[in-house]
Amino acid sequence: MKKQILIALFLCSSIFVNAQNKDSIIIKQIFNEALMNGKAYDDLRVLCKEIGQRLSGTQNAQKAVEYTFSLMKNYGFDSVWLQEVMVPMWVRGAKETAAIITNDKRINTSICALGGSVACKSGGILAEVIEVKSFSELSKIGKEKIEGKIVFFNRMFDEKYITTFSAYGSAVDQRGSGAIEAAKYGAIGVVVRSMAYRNDPNPHTGAMRYKDSVEKIPACAISTVDAEILSDELKKNPKLKFYFNQNCQTLDDVKSYNVVGKIQGTEKPNEIICVGGHLDSWDLAEGAHDDGAGCVQSIEALRIFKSLNIKPKRTLHAVMFMNEENGLRGGIKYAELAEQNNEKHIAAIESDAGGFAPRGFGIEDSVALIRFQKYIPLLKPYLCEQIKSGHGGSDIGPLKKSGTVCIGLSPDSQRYFDIHHSANDVFENVSRRELHMGAAAMASLIYLISEYGVK
Amino acid sequence: MKKQILIALFLCSSIFVNAQNKDSIIIKQIFNEALMNGKAYDDLRVLCKEIGQRLSGTQNAQKAVEYTFSLMKNYGFDSVWLQEVMVPMWVRGAKETAAIITNDKRINTSICALGGSVACKSGGILAEVIEVKSFSELSKIGKEKIEGKIVFFNRMFDEKYITTFSAYGSAVDQRGSGAIEAAKYGAIGVVVRSMAYRNDPNPHTGAMRYKDSVEKIPACAISTVDAEILSDELKKNPKLKFYFNQNCQTLDDVKSYNVVGKIQGTEKPNEIICVGGHLDSWDLAEGAHDDGAGCVQSIEALRIFKSLNIKPKRTLHAVMFMNEENGLRGGIKYAELAEQNNEKHIAAIESDAGGFAPRGFGIEDSVALIRFQKYIPLLKPYLCEQIKSGHGGSDIGPLKKSGTVCIGLSPDSQRYFDIHHSANDVFENVSRRELHMGAAAMASLIYLISEYGVK
Repeated sequence: MKKQILIALFLCSSIFVNAQNKDSIIIKQIFNEALMNGKAYDDLRVLCKEIGQRLSGTQNAQKAVEYTFSLMKNYGFDSVWLQEVMVPMWVRGAKETAAIITNDKRINTSICALGGSVACKSGGILAEVIEVKSFSELSKIGKEKIEGKIVFFNRMFDEKYITTFSAYGSAVDQRGSGAIEAAKYGAIGVVVRSMAYRNDPNPHTGAMRYKDSVEKIPACAISTVDAEILSDELKKNPKLKFYFNQNCQTLDDVKSYNVVGKIQGTEKPNEIICVGGHLDSWDLAEGAHDDGAGCVQSIEALRIFKSLNIKPKRTLHAVMFMNEENGLRGGIKYAELAEQNNEKHIAAIESDAGGFAPRGFGIEDSVALIRFQKYIPLLKPYLCEQIKSGHGGSDIGPLKKSGTVCIGLSPDSQRYFDIHHSANDVFENVSRRELHMGAAAMASLIYLISEYGVK
Repeated sequence: MKKQILIALFLCSSIFVNAQNKDSIIIKQIFNEALMNGKAYDDLRVLCKEIGQRLSGTQNAQKAVEYTFSLMKNYGFDSVWLQEVMVPMWVRGAKETAAIITNDKRINTSICALGGSVACKSGGILAEVIEVKSFSELSKIGKEKIEGKIVFFNRMFDEKYITTFSAYGSAVDQRGSGAIEAAKYGAIGVVVRSMAYRNDPNPHTGAMRYKDSVEKIPACAISTVDAEILSDELKKNPKLKFYFNQNCQTLDDVKSYNVVGKIQGTEKPNEIICVGGHLDSWDLAEGAHDDGAGCVQSIEALRIFKSLNIKPKRTLHAVMFMNEENGLRGGIKYAELAEQNNEKHIAAIESDAGGFAPRGFGIEDSVALIRFQKYIPLLKPYLCEQIKSGHGGSDIGPLKKSGTVCIGLSPDSQRYFDIHHSANDVFENVSRRELHMGAAAMASLIYLISEYGVK
């Protein structure tokens, strides 16, 4: 009996070892293909340099739909289709202007309207400034002192955080809800310190919200460099005035699309693994890291399967989600359609943290996390073995309620907020190797999920 | 008895836990200081933008000596001194020119003289080209076909390697020994594919060698983009000619200096831990990553001790080594003086792999490696916990024969060869956070070695 148990144990362990050997060989092939023959970088060049910014509802967004559709067709995916979705359309209008105006001088400053903001009425806003670091300060200062003024939210990133997304999280409420909170106290506009580290001369845009019950006041972001200047000037002269003008507006919703490419699974075709990024971008640059990178990496992950002739046991979807930045309509639509069509998405992987060197994955499901941590030795040679509890991604979030395991690619985060939503998010700031390694990391995890499931 | 053992074990383990707690608190302070108040980035700006390239023997190298000397004085190190060292002086001369010349056209190409190369005689070299990928090909082709021609070494980086230093290692023999090997077969010049990945328009310089018994022929590097063009043109027309001209020369040796700053140890002052980078750089850019980064990080590591008032048990040296790039004279001199003065260097840490996000350390000593791997949990929160067997650094290498444990900071390597020895190695390509995290990682390891030794 004991002997039989030993034999059984031996067989089990040798099956496990053989599987790991086979898997390690395939993962090696995946990385070799990405590093030597990867196409994502060239695809990203087209998306950035021939198309450019892709704010939802724009002609460029439509061009990006058509481009990625044809790309997936050309790579020979089993099928490629569009998912119609209505998206909001916000337009920036003429370039914003802003200045600090004191008794004896005018200092022009770098601002940009926050996405979703209303315009300034009648030639711009000129008013005194109340600088605060938090919403609670507003209530301490009180309506009497705030009314008719511009509120300047100047809480900086907490630089101590090692992961820059935590620093972002420590500050982004100012951008998202600053206009609502300030308007409650009668402010006529808000200026928000950009979601970036210090010494950055570029303003960073990003989504902001209004509340129906609260006056909608214009909101802009000021570069961190100019935020420091404004703060210094306020110390010298608390009565200085700030001027800004922006002409942005929200138009009617526009028809747009998610783009989906598929490779059919051979053994469990009804179990779907989707991998995606968002095709829309902010309008100040080219959306290279955010999130052109995630789109071309997702396509590349499936292209690698085709190129190496790896037949996945489960069905793979590469999804270009539309409208992550200012509405999430594409992500919501994708999940809606999946439910309507009784599709079973066992896992969804999103790349929306930049095309930097991959370090691992954040997993939103504790059971899957334990399974995936067994793959650490397989990923270690590629320096992307950090399998941790973490955020999946905004676009794939709506799938969670159907039990999909959501997974986020975790690239090195140190430089992400140097480019995020600013003029710096251009193709030149993407490294070919880093981009391709991220795609290979995703393809490797997709392969393992396709072979062994999630739980 | 059993109880006593248990009590002893409990005490031991609680001492260990308390030590780890104390250490983790200090390491947290070190990272906070670097990330919030770090000076290395500003120091690097001066080194790059106010001084610039610092090739050994130049006025700029002397300025860098003076600048880092005053920097360490101003940070209040216990003492700062110079170590005189004679260094070679190679000068590039007028900008190089080169072209592919076929029957019907002339294609100008990007080259630079390799460091240490001789000039071309009498207005440049014009000759047919023999393209090879390896030295063994030369012997197959034979002297008859090579004599009087230019040998073009065009073996590319092996892109499959995950660590880019391995790819560099797979190709760099062409740069180092190409001129010797080609001259043996009567070649009159060599053109070496730059030590970089494809699509790089910049030529990358770097050291090359001659042998007294072999004719010294001019050697240049061609950008990888132009190497591809040259190779393509050769396929079309094997009789095409290549022209290049360079006016570089080696002058007499010049007096220069290592710069050393010290913080005296409190308990074992005779045991020294040194940390350093090399102050000299190639002349095509600003030596920002290579190795301005390593210099300012080394100073920063000691500055953090002063700033946090951490009194190291052992003595710390921050060393700016002179002449790593084309002679290693500073590293050799430092080890010589250490021996002369009976200094006991227990450990040496070098940062010479770029100022990118730190991932861990390479350790050249297997016993120390085992000790240091116990520190992995302490470094994990800072994403720099990869403690592996690996290269220490060129400058600290000469200390090894006295038993010094040599350690290299291991930053993420993916983008290093996009900047290495080329016009791209400028301050703008350094990230403040990444640079400061590297300094904090070094300060943390120095602290642990200072507390607990190396073995």
